[in-house]
Amino acid sequence: MADLERIGVSLDKDLLEEFDALIARQGYQSRSEALRDLVRQQLSQERLSDPKAEAVAAVLLVYDHHATGLTEKLIEVQHSHLIHAISSLHVHLDAHDCLEVIILRGQVGEINRVGERILSMKGVKLGRVNLMAK
Amino acid sequence: MADLERIGVSLDKDLLEEFDALIARQGYQSRSEALRDLVRQQLSQERLSDPKAEAVAAVLLVYDHHATGLTEKLIEVQHSHLIHAISSLHVHLDAHDCLEVIILRGQVGEINRVGERILSMKGVKLGRVNLMAK
Amino acid sequence: MADLERIGVSLDKDLLEEFDALIARQGYQSRSEALRDLVRQQLSQERLSDPKAEAVAAVLLVYDHHATGLTEKLIEVQHSHLIHAISSLHVHLDAHDCLEVIILRGQVGEINRVGERILSMKGVKLGRVNLMAK
Amino acid sequence: MADLERIGVSLDKDLLEEFDALIARQGYQSRSEALRDLVRQQLSQERLSDPKAEAVAAVLLVYDHHATGLTEKLIEVQHSHLIHAISSLHVHLDAHDCLEVIILRGQVGEINRVGERILSMKGVKLGRVNLMAK
Repeated sequence: MADLERIGVSLDKDLLEEFDALIARQGYQSRSEALRDLVRQQLSQERLSDPKAEAVAAVLLVYDHHATGLTEKLIEVQHSHLIHAISSLHVHLDAHDCLEVIILRGQVGEINRVGERILSMKGVKLGRVNLMAK
Repeated sequence: MADLERIGVSLDKDLLEEFDALIARQGYQSRSEALRDLVRQQLSQERLSDPKAEAVAAVLLVYDHHATGLTEKLIEVQHSHLIHAISSLHVHLDAHDCLEVIILRGQVGEINRVGERILSMKGVKLGRVNLMAK
Repeated sequence: MADLERIGVSLDKDLLEEFDALIARQGYQSRSEALRDLVRQQLSQERLSDPKAEAVAAVLLVYDHHATGLTEKLIEVQHSHLIHAISSLHVHLDAHDCLEVIILRGQVGEINRVGERILSMKGVKLGRVNLMAK
Repeated sequence: MADLERIGVSLDKDLLEEFDALIARQGYQSRSEALRDLVRQQLSQERLSDPKAEAVAAVLLVYDHHATGLTEKLIEVQHSHLIHAISSLHVHLDAHDCLEVIILRGQVGEINRVGERILSMKGVKLGRVNLMAK
């Protein structure tokens, strides 16, 4: 966040007023901060469309921990040599269901493949791969 | 597009360089134009999250025109008194399938309901409701 | 829609009850119809992730028809030799704004590129590319 | 996962073949398992469209841990009385950036509000709220 540059932007008055109202509601303290976030999201989305790009991902899954063999399979898949599982978080939702967040690092294409394999396992009820550009 | 206002925005140098490269690839001729589009999209998305908001929508559907009674049902649903069907476009994709775009005006909640009814009709293969804020 | 095959599917009772309630609200007349739609959407999404896949797309845009030279540029871009513009629909939203739907056929990657070029044009306020697998 | 019911579904032969190929690639071991996942996703999405519905969410954020006061603000917002922060996971991405996953429980509307407040904080570079129906 070191090197800041200041640029000028022209916007229609109406658009600006509406934007100011929105970002106030969201809790932003300056327009620059809000616009920086929009720009970052746009760039991040763009980068992640390349399957070869390096990314960090959070794989979210809800599963029934009574499903036989699932825990072993989940751990196995995290030890693939093409991605790198950094960390994971486990939450007990109720008597049956667990929420697990697995943080992976690797290429977008590879992460998506691992994500699909996890989501297709018997006992996994819901799942989503969240890519974030590195 | 009459009343323009000029504001100053501070961005990290790296972020700005990457953004400039992206918008050049996309064909933008100025940063202001690209940032205006980001702001508009953000505002539009925000507005459309309210089911009472007025919106224009394009309902896209691919359907088999041999499906009995479908064409009549599609027309009927467009004559609901809660939404207003403005116009539609029909494209013959192949011997079986048609693509139809129906432009609706009304409240977001109502448009979504009509959209769901259309997509659930027998013979409709794919469909999507595209909301645009008015 | 000629050759139907009948398969058996096992579902948890709760899941089935909730699904039946949802599809009744949506207006489906049979589970098979609703499940076919889910399967089609899934397959369509999968196919469209390949930039070389052939697709039909609806490009939606809202633009200010007073923007100088925009109409010409929009027509020009539709005459690229890599995509094929099939048809278009124009709706007058108010004194300034028009909604235009352009139906394109071509490769996913190419359609996205054309879509980006259109959306980056000065005077285009909102836009979206909707891909549908062919 | 106790009470299973078996239903019959009619699908076009082509559709079925293509679906079988897709789910084999994804690693599914049976059609029932793959269809159950599609149904669950659909239901989950439907439920989360109600702002009053109870949900579990994973808020993902990337932030610069040098941003003054951010860590305190992040903890404060997790102690709101309207949502319940269950757990969190922290990963050091590089010298500056941290990835944090915060698991929240509460009403969809409230979770979205907290998520927006977090994402608007100075120093938070990227963020996303992932809702999962409970």
